[in-house]
Amino acid sequence: MINAVGRDIPEEILEMTGKEVFHGNNYFDGYVFQKASPSTKCVINSNGSKVIESIHEALVKCEIRDGMTLGFHHHFRDGDYIVNMVMKEVHEMGIKDITICASSLGKAHDPLVKYIEDGTITNIQSSGVRGKIGEAISNGKLKGLAIMRSHGGRVRAIETGEVHLDISFIGAPTCDDYGNCRGIGGKSNCGVLSYSMVDGDYADKVVAITDCLVPFPNFPAHISMTKVDYVVVVDEIGDPEKIATGAAKPTKDMRKLMMADYCTQFVVNTPYFKNGFSYQTGVGGASIASTISLAKIMKERGIRMRFGIGGLTKPMCDLLINDQVDALLDTQDFDLAAVESVKDLRHFRISAGQYASPFNKGAVVNKLDFVILATLEVDVHFNCNVVVGSDGMITGAQGGHPDTAAGAKCTIVITPLLQGRTPAVCSEVTTVTTPGESVDVVITDYGIAINPRRQDLIACMKEKEVALPFKTIEELRDMAYSIAGKPQKVEFGERIVGIIESRDGTIMDVVRQIKPFEFSEK
Amino acid sequence: MINAVGRDIPEEILEMTGKEVFHGNNYFDGYVFQKASPSTKCVINSNGSKVIESIHEALVKCEIRDGMTLGFHHHFRDGDYIVNMVMKEVHEMGIKDITICASSLGKAHDPLVKYIEDGTITNIQSSGVRGKIGEAISNGKLKGLAIMRSHGGRVRAIETGEVHLDISFIGAPTCDDYGNCRGIGGKSNCGVLSYSMVDGDYADKVVAITDCLVPFPNFPAHISMTKVDYVVVVDEIGDPEKIATGAAKPTKDMRKLMMADYCTQFVVNTPYFKNGFSYQTGVGGASIASTISLAKIMKERGIRMRFGIGGLTKPMCDLLINDQVDALLDTQDFDLAAVESVKDLRHFRISAGQYASPFNKGAVVNKLDFVILATLEVDVHFNCNVVVGSDGMITGAQGGHPDTAAGAKCTIVITPLLQGRTPAVCSEVTTVTTPGESVDVVITDYGIAINPRRQDLIACMKEKEVALPFKTIEELRDMAYSIAGKPQKVEFGERIVGIIESRDGTIMDVVRQIKPFEFSEK
Repeated sequence: MINAVGRDIPEEILEMTGKEVFHGNNYFDGYVFQKASPSTKCVINSNGSKVIESIHEALVKCEIRDGMTLGFHHHFRDGDYIVNMVMKEVHEMGIKDITICASSLGKAHDPLVKYIEDGTITNIQSSGVRGKIGEAISNGKLKGLAIMRSHGGRVRAIETGEVHLDISFIGAPTCDDYGNCRGIGGKSNCGVLSYSMVDGDYADKVVAITDCLVPFPNFPAHISMTKVDYVVVVDEIGDPEKIATGAAKPTKDMRKLMMADYCTQFVVNTPYFKNGFSYQTGVGGASIASTISLAKIMKERGIRMRFGIGGLTKPMCDLLINDQVDALLDTQDFDLAAVESVKDLRHFRISAGQYASPFNKGAVVNKLDFVILATLEVDVHFNCNVVVGSDGMITGAQGGHPDTAAGAKCTIVITPLLQGRTPAVCSEVTTVTTPGESVDVVITDYGIAINPRRQDLIACMKEKEVALPFKTIEELRDMAYSIAGKPQKVEFGERIVGIIESRDGTIMDVVRQIKPFEFSEK
Repeated sequence: MINAVGRDIPEEILEMTGKEVFHGNNYFDGYVFQKASPSTKCVINSNGSKVIESIHEALVKCEIRDGMTLGFHHHFRDGDYIVNMVMKEVHEMGIKDITICASSLGKAHDPLVKYIEDGTITNIQSSGVRGKIGEAISNGKLKGLAIMRSHGGRVRAIETGEVHLDISFIGAPTCDDYGNCRGIGGKSNCGVLSYSMVDGDYADKVVAITDCLVPFPNFPAHISMTKVDYVVVVDEIGDPEKIATGAAKPTKDMRKLMMADYCTQFVVNTPYFKNGFSYQTGVGGASIASTISLAKIMKERGIRMRFGIGGLTKPMCDLLINDQVDALLDTQDFDLAAVESVKDLRHFRISAGQYASPFNKGAVVNKLDFVILATLEVDVHFNCNVVVGSDGMITGAQGGHPDTAAGAKCTIVITPLLQGRTPAVCSEVTTVTTPGESVDVVITDYGIAINPRRQDLIACMKEKEVALPFKTIEELRDMAYSIAGKPQKVEFGERIVGIIESRDGTIMDVVRQIKPFEFSEK
């Protein structure tokens, strides 16, 4: 069945998943559903401690068994030890057929491939997968279907009961003996625990794993003791150097600086750039450079931001330090400056649900004026692909891309015209992950295209005679093809190894197994 | 059927309510249940405002109809305008058979009596009822059964699905156009919104009513926009002077000061009085005086409190100001000093569930060392009654009394031996609201009785030769009776008008209709 972004979703997949095809961003607006709920084991006595000896003991007490779904967060990013520690123990206990439902998985989790191969893990649900896990899935090693969902989509899937978390594991930089977890403090400081909050609310069993046990009460708790069954203390929950890196040095790449400048010029000429605007940006070099140059213009023109959302990095936190923004709303911290900024009273942690879920009574992305995003590919329909490489291999993550793009009044995607030797602007993306309906502007080093759906923005730029190299998206594609040649379509095998789930749970696209490369017989 | 505190709970009531009789405090420890859940209407679009014109419009949009259950909080105490405003509108719409599920109801709600009389309101569930509503219930005017439950018990009832909230109304001192509510700021400042948090989580529809609309985002939100359907702006949500009163002047009543002194002497001689202890106290004159005198001894002996919980008043907040406590955990603010203290970074708001629910994975009351409470009556089994007057009229509220008493390692009840001319220590309380199992010490102006269950405390006081007027509870009762005479048993009618629900949902006692007074024929 053809969906709203023109992708043919095979009937077998619709039947297997019970899902609908993607019908457009606001298809479920006003939809009423009954929320799911966990089972809870009451703690009435006053014995006082939930600390147990080991992850093994936690698994035994949580009655781990074949076929369970385990929840994890990715606030420790490439420095995460939790997933591997837990899965090693699960594997040693001989448990099979586990579904991993993580907010994301990355290179830190390469060791999981052997558990995929031996059937310990048979399903993976994640914002994305990088590294060896992506290769394993693309090579058809995962028995079940990989589901790639956005940060908002994960909350939706759990809150609707589409996914039921049997046990969730929360890596907690600090935790007390009753399970109050905080993302800040300790030696594996990640700032916030936003992605885990839904696990606390909906998992039957919740295990906090910490390397820094602190006195009760560890307040303000990011995950409350009322939701935590057991606390396990281990030597190390992560590698601090890979959890929050030092702030990236501002890019000196002229191409990125030029795109950042285009972006800023565009932003400041829209009607949304006024006192009280709201803003989010990704962590790419051009996005970060845009924030820096935007801050300058804000200062020159005396314009103040009401709130910034993130995935935060130093330039966003600098807005707070320099009193150019009233509030930062934080779901994840990418560098030490952002982690440190969490202590600022105007820097607020929000849950992934508050950030981005389409199935609550309104997330903050709905209140965004601007979001500046990157992409691997964007096509002439403005569809973006941030998950599957042009070679067909799963290599990226949806993150909050489709959530913020859908919510923001002005969604800007920045990409160089060519990613290496591959056209980033193309006729059809390898895989659709964010629908063109959500994308208003594409900025490349060769020009800027405004989505024809946004005649208001086109008219605005004309009226103000904005001196930017505007093109049609087809012109940008043609330029890319004229430089690098029209890319050959990736040849996939037949088997569907994963689906790209829209934030509302419908199917945006499917991902097929990589076809082993064969030399042409010609 | 006779329950664990010796009360005979009629079979008809067990059948009607589907409840069990009270089996003892820890009967449900380790019990596993499936949590209830609300329905949710998704807000995906970015139109941005939930502000509607009036309470009437909110009721229409929430599809109010006969038989619904409406949730309210009592953070505005005797200054609350919300309940009356909403119920006036409900009444004018001709809606009948409403169940009010409030965290508490007081004298501010006297106008509800006419809605009880005309069948608009047929059921009341509350921590307690004071004033005219109590009289109306005791006089048999409420068609259904009044259910009195503790603050923890209300959360339990909602989380188990025993009560399903159709619409909850949150009086919000400040709110933004997307529904982020805070208890602080504005002109009807109540500090925290702890009792409403469960309404946000479990009500199908949530309406925020505010008299101070502020710019989005109103963070940190005490109730999140993700849980609020509509925002109504009215002129006044409460009477500030009755919401948070000026701090009570320290009592000069010699009897209260003496009991406070007994209490402090007892506390400091227990093994729990050491660095890092935790403490809660009520708002009675003797309790407040105890905190003041305890603070002095803490200073003298260099002992620091780890955390204090409340229901907070100035003397507890002074501990924070004077750096004698690490943290305050707050569910309600009784005076302006407490409201002001909310701004302190070591003053944390907690939900009623985190505070006191017996049906989560562990509430903070489980971590209490001491709680100092008042009571209307206490009997020789150490059972307390804080709801029904000695004249049989409903006049008080459970509040957190049974929750904290069950949780604390040392529960001290302070009461003058005589309340006016009525013995407060008696053979059998009029109504059991907190079981004797939870009460360790009774302090009166005539002496102190330790519960024989606590041989450890009795031994400790003997060993330390603590110079306090220890008596048995029977001796205290006998003294009371010798002064005031043995009180005549209140004569009740047959009809059961209410139940005292234990915090775990079992039945602690029933409340019968008042029998109209008749002159004896003799």
